[in-house]
Amino acid sequence: MSHEEWRAFLIEGTRTAKVGVVRKDGSPVVAPVWFVLEDDDTIVFTTHRTTTKGYALRRDPRLALCVDDDRPPYAFVRIAGIATCEERSPDLLAYATRLGGRYMGADRAEEYGRRNAVEGEMVVRVRPERVNAQTDIAD
Amino acid sequence: MSHEEWRAFLIEGTRTAKVGVVRKDGSPVVAPVWFVLEDDDTIVFTTHRTTTKGYALRRDPRLALCVDDDRPPYAFVRIAGIATCEERSPDLLAYATRLGGRYMGADRAEEYGRRNAVEGEMVVRVRPERVNAQTDIAD
Repeated sequence: MSHEEWRAFLIEGTRTAKVGVVRKDGSPVVAPVWFVLEDDDTIVFTTHRTTTKGYALRRDPRLALCVDDDRPPYAFVRIAGIATCEERSPDLLAYATRLGGRYMGADRAEEYGRRNAVEGEMVVRVRPERVNAQTDIAD
Repeated sequence: MSHEEWRAFLIEGTRTAKVGVVRKDGSPVVAPVWFVLEDDDTIVFTTHRTTTKGYALRRDPRLALCVDDDRPPYAFVRIAGIATCEERSPDLLAYATRLGGRYMGADRAEEYGRRNAVEGEMVVRVRPERVNAQTDIAD
């Protein structure tokens, strides 16, 4: 996929990202997240500092993620990068609201923004360092 | 979700699993795979020994995976376990054919079985050690 194609793929509908991080003991974790894509390709999601991925990311910011289409002929975008975790971010409510709008609909954006912009929730930003995007896997 | 519910969730339609493994340098990898679920809950997929996840799994068999529904109200199953990688498996063609049937349709099962049961392709089996299954995430 071209740069424009993988951007369009990431932002289509309510596709979630499956985020991979590594625990202190070296074992992997994979969890789904709601995310938005900024104009400069930064991927932004929120997670609480006390979730498994929150703990792991604060210890080791190396992150991988995968967004896929699980219907024939199948396609995916895989991204690797270094995450920055911002606690008490002044942008938290705005991001939580955008995420609510993307995933629950514009009419519920504010409701979900307020619900998710809670104490301890971090804004996580990832600039893609490597992108692997493939379409028509089955062909 | 109950045991029967998460089993049913995993085998619904053409849902793919996003598999997380850890590279030698300690960084995470996440990749989508086609998989089948055995009666004893073993998850089986195939991957080539020279893929990133093939290399990583032969070095460190700890594996995490996530299968999710990316539409409201959202749901996911996360599983962690230890993978066994069988090279030159006598079961490779049979699994590749089942995988082809699940993901490309019964009429193309044999075609995809032959296509994917190639030299170097490993049969990977994972017995779930931890299961985290949640429905109605947005509620």
